[in-house]
Amino acid sequence: MRVRKRKGAEEYLENNPHYVILEPEKVKGHWRELFANTNPIHIEVGSGKGRFITGMAQAHPEINYIAIDMQVSVLSHALDKVLESQLPNVRLLLVDGSSLTNYFEAGEIDLVYLNFSDPWPKKKHEKRRLTYKTFLETYQQILPPEGEIHFKTDNRGLFEYSLASFSQYGMILKRVWLDLHASDFEDNVMTEYEEKFSAKGQVIYRVEAKF
Amino acid sequence: MRVRKRKGAEEYLENNPHYVILEPEKVKGHWRELFANTNPIHIEVGSGKGRFITGMAQAHPEINYIAIDMQVSVLSHALDKVLESQLPNVRLLLVDGSSLTNYFEAGEIDLVYLNFSDPWPKKKHEKRRLTYKTFLETYQQILPPEGEIHFKTDNRGLFEYSLASFSQYGMILKRVWLDLHASDFEDNVMTEYEEKFSAKGQVIYRVEAKF
Repeated sequence: MRVRKRKGAEEYLENNPHYVILEPEKVKGHWRELFANTNPIHIEVGSGKGRFITGMAQAHPEINYIAIDMQVSVLSHALDKVLESQLPNVRLLLVDGSSLTNYFEAGEIDLVYLNFSDPWPKKKHEKRRLTYKTFLETYQQILPPEGEIHFKTDNRGLFEYSLASFSQYGMILKRVWLDLHASDFEDNVMTEYEEKFSAKGQVIYRVEAKF
Repeated sequence: MRVRKRKGAEEYLENNPHYVILEPEKVKGHWRELFANTNPIHIEVGSGKGRFITGMAQAHPEINYIAIDMQVSVLSHALDKVLESQLPNVRLLLVDGSSLTNYFEAGEIDLVYLNFSDPWPKKKHEKRRLTYKTFLETYQQILPPEGEIHFKTDNRGLFEYSLASFSQYGMILKRVWLDLHASDFEDNVMTEYEEKFSAKGQVIYRVEAKF
């Protein structure tokens, strides 16, 4: 997600250490202690401005959520929403999706969400796509056996690629939606991006895949 | 495919035994002898009026094709096209897709095509869909290890279902197209149905899946 650089964003994140976990490597294996409960933990990799994760956290107080983004300005907008709603079950993480095993123990995460990830359409950038096999390997390491990825996007090329990538990695497609908003799926929480582009008539794709 | 009943269709098929194989159980294990060459054999299950199979046979003289449909009137239209073109590498089979192991030896077929199969949208008719697991089992038995199914449809529900069905059966999705006509796929031979509905703006989905 590309957003305008925000002045003072770094200090803003640093000044909210209750929500923004500044040294996540120290929490590895202890996330349930940090949340002070034994509820499942779901993460969103590439969380953007945080509308999805705060919406989910509001709808599901019985689940803990961690929003992960590597861009300071982007994550600062998610922090706005978290501070506004004062949700007890959300934390933010300023890290790269490829480094997740540094911050989470094997099986510590119960579900991975990917929403409107950067499509990186050029073949030479394939390795940067969040559904490329090296990322799947990373997610698999922090999920339990048969752990799941729930992925949605409006990008046709990325979705075509991702279905094949999941399958070729050995994952099983549990369910596929080729027009999410025309379906009977009721639990959908829209991202900022999703609302904007679906209003323009863009079809939204979704898949639930398990290892 | 629903077509008007054609008078004399049955006799028409019976009178053309060179193309319409009337006792296919006797050819089981001997299809390459029937074609008088050792070329690969591709079948289309639910071949409709035969435009796809005759188009493919024209484009690929190095491959043998068998069009399979269980409806007399439908197959009679395919026979029209075969007689007109006098293609040496096509045969027609008036049988049910669920009975293919009666007519083909294990590994005797190299590729299975499914095009615009009946979607059977009601859940109670799931077992009739040509991508239901019992059909996949049948195709697997007549294909070699890692044999492939190439499937296209304009029906969103059937395509969503089929991707999950292939995957849950243990098949690997090699490649997926969510708008075939907008893609760079060059080898596409359109069916009658495909031409009509894509002209109306309908998106065509396609997948290549392997066992």
